[in-house]
Amino acid sequence: MAERIGFIGMGIMGVPMALNLVRAGFDVIVTNRSPDKCAPLAEAGAEVAESPEDLARKASVIITMLTGPHAVDHMLFGEDGAAANLNAQSLVINMSSVPPSYSSDLARRIGNYRAGFLDAPVSGSKKPAEDGTLVILAGGEAEHLERARPYFDAMGKATIHCGPAGAGSHMKMSINLLLGSMLAGLAEMLAFGEKGGLSRDAMLDVVLAGPLSNELFAMKREMLEQGEYPPQFPAKHMAKDLKYALDTAHELGAWAPATHLAAQLYRMLVAGGRGDEDFAAVFDVLHGPV
Amino acid sequence: MAERIGFIGMGIMGVPMALNLVRAGFDVIVTNRSPDKCAPLAEAGAEVAESPEDLARKASVIITMLTGPHAVDHMLFGEDGAAANLNAQSLVINMSSVPPSYSSDLARRIGNYRAGFLDAPVSGSKKPAEDGTLVILAGGEAEHLERARPYFDAMGKATIHCGPAGAGSHMKMSINLLLGSMLAGLAEMLAFGEKGGLSRDAMLDVVLAGPLSNELFAMKREMLEQGEYPPQFPAKHMAKDLKYALDTAHELGAWAPATHLAAQLYRMLVAGGRGDEDFAAVFDVLHGPV
Amino acid sequence: MAERIGFIGMGIMGVPMALNLVRAGFDVIVTNRSPDKCAPLAEAGAEVAESPEDLARKASVIITMLTGPHAVDHMLFGEDGAAANLNAQSLVINMSSVPPSYSSDLARRIGNYRAGFLDAPVSGSKKPAEDGTLVILAGGEAEHLERARPYFDAMGKATIHCGPAGAGSHMKMSINLLLGSMLAGLAEMLAFGEKGGLSRDAMLDVVLAGPLSNELFAMKREMLEQGEYPPQFPAKHMAKDLKYALDTAHELGAWAPATHLAAQLYRMLVAGGRGDEDFAAVFDVLHGPV
Amino acid sequence: MAERIGFIGMGIMGVPMALNLVRAGFDVIVTNRSPDKCAPLAEAGAEVAESPEDLARKASVIITMLTGPHAVDHMLFGEDGAAANLNAQSLVINMSSVPPSYSSDLARRIGNYRAGFLDAPVSGSKKPAEDGTLVILAGGEAEHLERARPYFDAMGKATIHCGPAGAGSHMKMSINLLLGSMLAGLAEMLAFGEKGGLSRDAMLDVVLAGPLSNELFAMKREMLEQGEYPPQFPAKHMAKDLKYALDTAHELGAWAPATHLAAQLYRMLVAGGRGDEDFAAVFDVLHGPV
Repeated sequence: MAERIGFIGMGIMGVPMALNLVRAGFDVIVTNRSPDKCAPLAEAGAEVAESPEDLARKASVIITMLTGPHAVDHMLFGEDGAAANLNAQSLVINMSSVPPSYSSDLARRIGNYRAGFLDAPVSGSKKPAEDGTLVILAGGEAEHLERARPYFDAMGKATIHCGPAGAGSHMKMSINLLLGSMLAGLAEMLAFGEKGGLSRDAMLDVVLAGPLSNELFAMKREMLEQGEYPPQFPAKHMAKDLKYALDTAHELGAWAPATHLAAQLYRMLVAGGRGDEDFAAVFDVLHGPV
Repeated sequence: MAERIGFIGMGIMGVPMALNLVRAGFDVIVTNRSPDKCAPLAEAGAEVAESPEDLARKASVIITMLTGPHAVDHMLFGEDGAAANLNAQSLVINMSSVPPSYSSDLARRIGNYRAGFLDAPVSGSKKPAEDGTLVILAGGEAEHLERARPYFDAMGKATIHCGPAGAGSHMKMSINLLLGSMLAGLAEMLAFGEKGGLSRDAMLDVVLAGPLSNELFAMKREMLEQGEYPPQFPAKHMAKDLKYALDTAHELGAWAPATHLAAQLYRMLVAGGRGDEDFAAVFDVLHGPV
Repeated sequence: MAERIGFIGMGIMGVPMALNLVRAGFDVIVTNRSPDKCAPLAEAGAEVAESPEDLARKASVIITMLTGPHAVDHMLFGEDGAAANLNAQSLVINMSSVPPSYSSDLARRIGNYRAGFLDAPVSGSKKPAEDGTLVILAGGEAEHLERARPYFDAMGKATIHCGPAGAGSHMKMSINLLLGSMLAGLAEMLAFGEKGGLSRDAMLDVVLAGPLSNELFAMKREMLEQGEYPPQFPAKHMAKDLKYALDTAHELGAWAPATHLAAQLYRMLVAGGRGDEDFAAVFDVLHGPV
Repeated sequence: MAERIGFIGMGIMGVPMALNLVRAGFDVIVTNRSPDKCAPLAEAGAEVAESPEDLARKASVIITMLTGPHAVDHMLFGEDGAAANLNAQSLVINMSSVPPSYSSDLARRIGNYRAGFLDAPVSGSKKPAEDGTLVILAGGEAEHLERARPYFDAMGKATIHCGPAGAGSHMKMSINLLLGSMLAGLAEMLAFGEKGGLSRDAMLDVVLAGPLSNELFAMKREMLEQGEYPPQFPAKHMAKDLKYALDTAHELGAWAPATHLAAQLYRMLVAGGRGDEDFAAVFDVLHGPV
């Protein structure tokens, strides 16, 4: 389909994702709150819109990749927002991470303009965004997903249809819950083993040589061995995501004991003034005593 | 080295491990409480000893792969036990899973005969034992480890020197703690996601496509999707291992909150009469409410 | 002081509290969403106002005792709301249970009318309200508290100044957190003891004969022995209060492990369809296994 | 009955308990590992035996009040132990705190001498021992309990028959589990409230004025306000008792989440080098962050 793609949000994730769309040959137009962040896309041949409103006039598919609900609201429904130019031919795809309840609301509000909507947060961070190997967690109607699939294929290695609008965000939250729990588990194992005389190095060798081995643990190995935690995914973001998960658990009547435990551990880190360090610093909480 | 290897314990793990030694060209003699279990080894060319005592007379390296402390004690120190023929040239390698405190005791008792000792439990179950891809977690002196290395290489894909005698068992316990915690985390994620309308199938697709993917989760996928849990690693064994880990945490003054949580979850499964099912049945505990 | 007291909210708590003011000789005017609930007060000699707006015209001290933030907002700021007649001589006292953050907001909004404000939730339920033995948890400025003290003395046996506006609500939440935790602790003790062969009756005898004895446990004894839980304080309310406490713990950076645990236990009860039973039914959750 | 009572163990508890027997007019003979501790009893008119063996020759009822299983074993079955003179007329009453499984074993071993046995740990510490207001938690046969009742009445204000031998110890453990959980709950409430701006003093006022008020909290008030914890019941003893409770929970298949949590909290205190402080110091663990 020769339609035009409007991409709103030129952050750490947005730039490489939009570049992958350009490289795949799609006709792309971009915008950003600070226009200078659009330079790499302009250089690669994309048009730069004056505003989200301008962008929505020129594009039929509109992708948002922003920092959260507040930014999405501003770019879609704020002054010069994209909503002004939405119509029955438009498809809005929110790829920003937001709570599931916000996603469901957003679907309804977009529906008021008779436009289509997908929520499509991603699993993966900067590197997979650059390599086009994100996993895309899509929620919405199948026909919208089929329309978006060529664009998703340019940005990711797999697209998984999770259910109706909101399901993508619930999937993202579920994955993050496992992420927080698994790293806390590894940290506890290392702290427990070290108290018994084992070296972190030997333990990580064993874990990474066996059936529990995974990329997350491999990526965090150096931090855990050095005891220094430059932020890839800051502890305060993990604490916030787990807080949202607890809110959702309360709404759904889910028990969620591991999520409760993980939420407390990362919160202790944040309360100790270390929220800007990588969430692997949870090791220090578990290595306590007090 | 042209020394002879005595292998005590022809169980699910012992048979394939001893077969791999024979296939690698080593001179192997075996024994077992029920002698008929030695048939596959006899067929493969190994000698069958009349008793552990007989075996220890004929072999200088003695490997035990048994169900626990009680069986190890019986085969080494009981009637017709191997200990009667231990001497300064002997090397005893216990590959059975036992608590770290038992391992340390065993090292002392073997030392009374001036024999060498390694504790060397394995990471991996039946399939890796057959394929010779176990990971061997060795505790003891480096010289003993060098002597044993060719035999370990025949049985496993990697040998990791964890520290002094007892360190292998502490490593095994640490790994199992992570094992129990990771599977409980996955189960909770699936239960949480399902309450929010996601399918287990879609969630497992996402997890197995991303950086959290690991062999354990892949192996348990079918059970978790079917809701049937034929035992590979029974819940009652996990509950027992985690109980030992809590005992050790108490001795060491380790906090261990994730281990406490996991211990409770698997214990609930056992208390509900489901201890003989695979430990993946923990999903049903987390999917509760009550 | 010969000022007039307006009391808004003739519920289970409001009626006996207002009656105690009348009996103490104060000049009381009341109102309620359903006017028929004002009958007992009219009979006792109180005037009945047509609306909160009418009430606020005739009274200088205005007490609200309602079901939560929504009802308070409606009666103060809604159509015919009391706010229309607030002025610098007014003192508004909210005795309803609300989250601390709502209380702080309310203080600011009342301040816009230059009126004084106290938040003053109570510890104690129907019986202490009738007996005038409530404990009043007051937040706000000391001068306002002195003005209100005679009225509080008519309704309660003790008034505790907790700090600025909002502190009363934070105190109430803190107390409820202990309430939920203590009853869960008793339930766990009874479940644990029973598994070991003790009778609930004997255990309750021992607890109530020693230094852990308290009125809460005495009040719940019959329910716990009978295994029937007619609601005095429904589990769903406890679950909601603990959810608010977790939200607050997240904001404050408090660890709060016992609150997390209690929140899960009462939520399991609610998720199991038993939210309308008394919160003592948490015994059944702890008596599991699954 | 004009029988003679032998009392073994002149510790902090044993001395006042034995004195109360003497004061009630009973014929008492005592012994202790360090004989000089018997002086207060000698002064009060009790005979001092040369050894437990000597004591058991002269007394038909033998009470042990010692530090734990090891000391009980030594005084009953060690060199010059009481067991040598047990017979079908003897009644042995162990009032020391021991694990339930030890109590059951002890009952069997005493039964081998055809002597009667009661396990009868107490609820209450030094002060109630002096005042004769202990609560006695008796396990064993009713006829033995009737025989012992006059002596129990001299030492305590209530005797509760908990079940067969071992039930007294299980009751004691159940009470201690509640004790540890309640104080941790209070500590968490104070920590949570303080983060929100409340004073410990005001919170304790509120708690002690309402239905949650109990003697335990009143006794700990000063410690919690001062932040200094001179040991009445050292944290290390609480940590040990809760460890025994977890062992028992594992045996019984009880879930016991509050006990798990409390065990971790007091263990953190011990691991931080503060095991000799009163267990109320758990406040500092909960007031963290890390």
